[in-house]
Amino acid sequence: MTTTPDTTGAVDEAAIDRLLAQLTLEEKAALTSGQDFWTTEPVDRLGVASVMVTDGPHGLRKQTGASDHLGIGSSVPATCFPPAAALGSTWDVDLLRRVGEALGRETRANEVAVLLGPGVNIKRSPLCGRNFEYFSEDPALAGDLGAAIVQGIQSQGVGTSLKHYAANNQETDRMRVSADVDERTLREIYLPAFERVVTQAQPWTVMCSYNRINGTYASEDHWLLTQVLRDEWGFEGLVVSDWGAVSNRVAAVAAGLDLEMPGTGGRTDAEVVAAVREGRLEESVLDIAARRVLRMVALSGPALGDPGTFDVETHHALAREAAAAGSVLLKNEPVGGAPLLPLRPGDSAGLLVVGEFARTPRYQGAGSSQVNPTRLDDALTALRTATGTDVPFEAGFTITGGPAGDDDALLASAVEAARSAGTVVLFLGLPAADESEGYDRTTLALPANQVSVLGAVAQVCERVVVVLANGSTVTVEWEALAPAVLETWLGGQAGGSAVADMLLGTLAPAGRLAETIPHRIEDTAAFGNFPGELGHVRYGEGVLVGYRWYDTRDVAVAYPFGHGLGYTTFGYSDVQATVRGEGPEASVEVRLTVTNTGEREGSEIVQVYVGDPQSSVLRPVRELKAFRKVSLEAGASQEVVVTLDARDLSFWHPGLGRWVVESGTFRVEVGASSRDIRTATDVEVTGEPLWGVLTPDSTYTEWTTHPVGGPLLQAALAPEGEAPEVDETLASMMGDMPVRVLAGFGLAGFDLDSLDALVTEVGGIPVA
Amino acid sequence: MTTTPDTTGAVDEAAIDRLLAQLTLEEKAALTSGQDFWTTEPVDRLGVASVMVTDGPHGLRKQTGASDHLGIGSSVPATCFPPAAALGSTWDVDLLRRVGEALGRETRANEVAVLLGPGVNIKRSPLCGRNFEYFSEDPALAGDLGAAIVQGIQSQGVGTSLKHYAANNQETDRMRVSADVDERTLREIYLPAFERVVTQAQPWTVMCSYNRINGTYASEDHWLLTQVLRDEWGFEGLVVSDWGAVSNRVAAVAAGLDLEMPGTGGRTDAEVVAAVREGRLEESVLDIAARRVLRMVALSGPALGDPGTFDVETHHALAREAAAAGSVLLKNEPVGGAPLLPLRPGDSAGLLVVGEFARTPRYQGAGSSQVNPTRLDDALTALRTATGTDVPFEAGFTITGGPAGDDDALLASAVEAARSAGTVVLFLGLPAADESEGYDRTTLALPANQVSVLGAVAQVCERVVVVLANGSTVTVEWEALAPAVLETWLGGQAGGSAVADMLLGTLAPAGRLAETIPHRIEDTAAFGNFPGELGHVRYGEGVLVGYRWYDTRDVAVAYPFGHGLGYTTFGYSDVQATVRGEGPEASVEVRLTVTNTGEREGSEIVQVYVGDPQSSVLRPVRELKAFRKVSLEAGASQEVVVTLDARDLSFWHPGLGRWVVESGTFRVEVGASSRDIRTATDVEVTGEPLWGVLTPDSTYTEWTTHPVGGPLLQAALAPEGEAPEVDETLASMMGDMPVRVLAGFGLAGFDLDSLDALVTEVGGIPVA
Repeated sequence: MTTTPDTTGAVDEAAIDRLLAQLTLEEKAALTSGQDFWTTEPVDRLGVASVMVTDGPHGLRKQTGASDHLGIGSSVPATCFPPAAALGSTWDVDLLRRVGEALGRETRANEVAVLLGPGVNIKRSPLCGRNFEYFSEDPALAGDLGAAIVQGIQSQGVGTSLKHYAANNQETDRMRVSADVDERTLREIYLPAFERVVTQAQPWTVMCSYNRINGTYASEDHWLLTQVLRDEWGFEGLVVSDWGAVSNRVAAVAAGLDLEMPGTGGRTDAEVVAAVREGRLEESVLDIAARRVLRMVALSGPALGDPGTFDVETHHALAREAAAAGSVLLKNEPVGGAPLLPLRPGDSAGLLVVGEFARTPRYQGAGSSQVNPTRLDDALTALRTATGTDVPFEAGFTITGGPAGDDDALLASAVEAARSAGTVVLFLGLPAADESEGYDRTTLALPANQVSVLGAVAQVCERVVVVLANGSTVTVEWEALAPAVLETWLGGQAGGSAVADMLLGTLAPAGRLAETIPHRIEDTAAFGNFPGELGHVRYGEGVLVGYRWYDTRDVAVAYPFGHGLGYTTFGYSDVQATVRGEGPEASVEVRLTVTNTGEREGSEIVQVYVGDPQSSVLRPVRELKAFRKVSLEAGASQEVVVTLDARDLSFWHPGLGRWVVESGTFRVEVGASSRDIRTATDVEVTGEPLWGVLTPDSTYTEWTTHPVGGPLLQAALAPEGEAPEVDETLASMMGDMPVRVLAGFGLAGFDLDSLDALVTEVGGIPVA
Repeated sequence: MTTTPDTTGAVDEAAIDRLLAQLTLEEKAALTSGQDFWTTEPVDRLGVASVMVTDGPHGLRKQTGASDHLGIGSSVPATCFPPAAALGSTWDVDLLRRVGEALGRETRANEVAVLLGPGVNIKRSPLCGRNFEYFSEDPALAGDLGAAIVQGIQSQGVGTSLKHYAANNQETDRMRVSADVDERTLREIYLPAFERVVTQAQPWTVMCSYNRINGTYASEDHWLLTQVLRDEWGFEGLVVSDWGAVSNRVAAVAAGLDLEMPGTGGRTDAEVVAAVREGRLEESVLDIAARRVLRMVALSGPALGDPGTFDVETHHALAREAAAAGSVLLKNEPVGGAPLLPLRPGDSAGLLVVGEFARTPRYQGAGSSQVNPTRLDDALTALRTATGTDVPFEAGFTITGGPAGDDDALLASAVEAARSAGTVVLFLGLPAADESEGYDRTTLALPANQVSVLGAVAQVCERVVVVLANGSTVTVEWEALAPAVLETWLGGQAGGSAVADMLLGTLAPAGRLAETIPHRIEDTAAFGNFPGELGHVRYGEGVLVGYRWYDTRDVAVAYPFGHGLGYTTFGYSDVQATVRGEGPEASVEVRLTVTNTGEREGSEIVQVYVGDPQSSVLRPVRELKAFRKVSLEAGASQEVVVTLDARDLSFWHPGLGRWVVESGTFRVEVGASSRDIRTATDVEVTGEPLWGVLTPDSTYTEWTTHPVGGPLLQAALAPEGEAPEVDETLASMMGDMPVRVLAGFGLAGFDLDSLDALVTEVGGIPVA
């Protein structure tokens, strides 16, 4: 975990206190709800400014027309960086920090106090319509990337809003549905990305989600907003509602919601005032909220007073770099000797580009995150420019799948052109309407009219490169038809140029899958439970999300989590793991050497997974705990050192209400994907004992294995020093029997009365 | 549903009332807890007898030694019928009724009032150690078979105990674990088998299980014991605790527990008396329990006064018939022209029997159900007797997997013998210690030493018949080595003779799988959730249990639910489905003709499945709703008519708290297994509307599609008769938005104040 940036130093806490003391009850209520759709309420008489917050997260959406929160209205031009699906695939915290800095500059230049992002929700199902706004199916990856982008943005003196907190993993019925999920699953899968960002980067704000969790609206969930977020994680910022997520403002304030957005024209302010007057809400609770709003306004003061400018071209170049860094080369098989990519100088003569997406790029998703880009590169123009040739183009299909006649003619023309092509680069992807905030996808498949083009083209040309554009996973049942497949996700405004860079080898695709590509929707963890029904969605798979599911259940996948090729290769060697400390102080230092074994420079993502094969609870066979991006010249080596702490070995114990490291053998695996483990080593860790309080409901095994209760029980059973005689079959059935039942059966040498005495005797045994 | 047998006529309800009125508080408390381990408390001054209840369910276990409830002590001889795993595979309600009659005769002859069975828990995981005591993974099958056996037993004037109620689907931590399961899943999967037995057969008693359900002990669950069981299903009998399942007697009585077993020597009676005296428990509630105990004692009076006898040989013959009826011929491939089974007269000359189980049969499971059989047939002796030849035998392996040397020698000897054998019948199975009440299995595999024998024998002999003995599913990854595989489950005391009958064709194996045979444990629905952790087990797969999981997720299986071969074949034709009525009165009459298309007589199980592809909730692709056993001579035909009622089309709507038939197309499939659908037809059903109460939290779609609210909303939006202008992208995002959020956004032509007016206006809309 890295250090928390000093974004709090600028605030004069005493001045905030003085301001708060001068606010009337009505002013506090007004301050903690918006003035309108995008701004906070000012307090003119005290000089408290109204500040603006606007949508993100991969670019600024500051509306210029009517406010709708839904990406429909027009907005100021801003750099459209690759959305989180692509940024997540970079596994590159330094890059994310630089993108964040650029986003912060644009936010500040537009006199906006807070950019509403990033989103770190876990990709529970590939069908979630908003997955393009999220980083990964893994919380460690999502959390570290989220923290980096927050650090970058906030380094510019403006704030972020970490969203959507929490368990908002679908769009279907998102504003009401109850995510029914047990605490261990929340703690291990759905909360840790938020926790990492909060503890590493202190975002100015956290945005609570629309949905319910186990029946309670996130906006009214005191456990979520106060106990976990503030008390356990030490969150110092304010909690803002997602737009319209407040169902009951008074309940929300009591739970820890600081700022309702948008404002309601004073309607809910009056409710808050009445609740305080009538004793249903402590004014001191409202004070906390008001203070946090005042503090955010104060934090933004310096930047808003000195907005500065940003350089459009520099940011465009960064967007281009990020697009390549987040593109995943899924396969790159040799055709006639050498891998198809990168194309060699001679290839461009016979190059044919097919696919409407080459000239009409899919580069971001629909909804509140939709940015009005400063520029927009398409791959066709970029390829023509880069090669200096008029690369021929065939649309191949219509994106919306027009009347069959249209697509048939486009396909026929493309096939005719492909017959004489040396290499076909085929751009496929999802139509924009398939991926949006507000609703989920219904299929993982690419549109049939696009797959038809691949089938027909592949029949006449063996050198086919498929370039994919989609915000969330598509199935690749067609992949045998293409020797090379490049997944670019949604590449942002410079994605087209980045594709040209990668095809031609100017840049290598450097991404790794942050989400598994399954063979079929039926294979996914949430199938059957997603998106729920009648107001509830059961998180039935528990902690087995993403690769945790596929790997633990040994389900075949098309491409595993962490997978991605480059234009060079890497070797792993000299792996060592050293354990230090015990229990909550335990740590494991993992050292290895990574070598670029190929013929050009390139980068590798070293992934460190941990498994605990023997545990009191079901644990995934492996879980990503750390990763490092390593860039090396051909032939060069570098030592990588990763330290896993106790938390990285722990599970959440819902009975004890805390993280627990159990003693035993842990498996540390280092690899290039969850299914390309290059080396593994076992380490012995001394953890914590998990003895509970012994009661009549405790089982025979729990009593006999307890260091205090065991001997006492034995003594009670065998006062003369003789072990009681227990039949072998009986013994195997007794293990899970509460001693109160054994006593009732009179089978183990004691009855209910002697058990009473025993329980009294061990009553002082502490909980471990 | 069939009629309820008249088991209540014998009781003079007025006499019971008079008795109850004379009982003291102390007597009521005593009467509702056992006198000791197996008998109820008498009230001598009023002539209320003490009656005995004893373990079942597939035979009587009336202990003669010390009482242990765990099948350890000795017991009177009784016919050991095949356990439920085999009986479940018969799919034969008439046979189950006859077996029940025999069990009832033996119960009565032993002067026992109640036989503690049957068990109708659902086989959620094949690892459950007690699966051999349960019928099926399907509730309709388990329920109909359970009802038949209850009817049979109770026809003899003695009672049954339907167990273990409810959601007791594992042995691990069974006495404490909380089955965390949503109501729809309980209602559709885990409760309906109990419901069918209660409504069809009125068992004298229902036994509550040890475990918790959603945190509440079954013994203390008022919803389970009173609301559902008595009030909804009309249960007239008494609820008895599983032995030791009462954690808090007072809470249990309040919840609807009538009889605590075993007794506690007055300890909990005193608690009950104190609770009534102190006003913590209504005496009227205790009266209900006492009355039900008095009633059971009265019910048993006639039979206990005239116990009669039973014929050991007749019951043994019935056990033999049942064993064959429940054996499932998984495969029977031709070797050299004809299917391997049945063996032809000439085959017996070259016959070799291999496998310890041929002479040391596995015929029942361990625990409280363990019967002391009146006789015990082994297959080797039966084969020798039936063929009149001294069929050679090789043990092949030790059941417990002794020191490697032993097994190696046994294997070598078996292989040597097999070299010159014409046909090898190889008996494989699970060691007794693998399957027991009290703990779960840890693997689905047969022991490796047994599989090794198959591998070696198959190398030297191509005619290998594997005969399996196991109480719950084993995986069959070795099956390619054997042309024929006969699954006999646990066959009871006459199972050995039944195997000889089937091998030689005297009887055909007539069973069908009541539980799917998966390829791997990782493929099973509960994998990862079973058996839970830290006191909780998540029923994460919801209603997708057994074939509902495999078929809906399209997971490959080794042998599907409902599968089973015979010695003849059947054709299905002329299928018609006719819908009558609407909503709760809807029914579907399914008619078809079944023809024996083979060359000998035989029986078929016609299986009727229903699917509802478009539904408000996720529904399994198919669910068994009815089945019929048809026995036909070669060439003969029979018309089968099955009427599905509204319940067979319904799902449980947890919001409305009742069963709901939705309008639309239902798919009716008729087949010989869940994956051998012979014919299917779609029917259009007019169901019930599912409009709810419209509120500000109702979505835009819910408002606009509501027959009353929709027009009102439209009118509010467009007072001048003009439809509001809604952008297409916006429209697709609006569907799932609560109108309160839309009002807050001001996007749909109304604000929060006009919404208030609208809600008031539609306030009178009734819930559909």
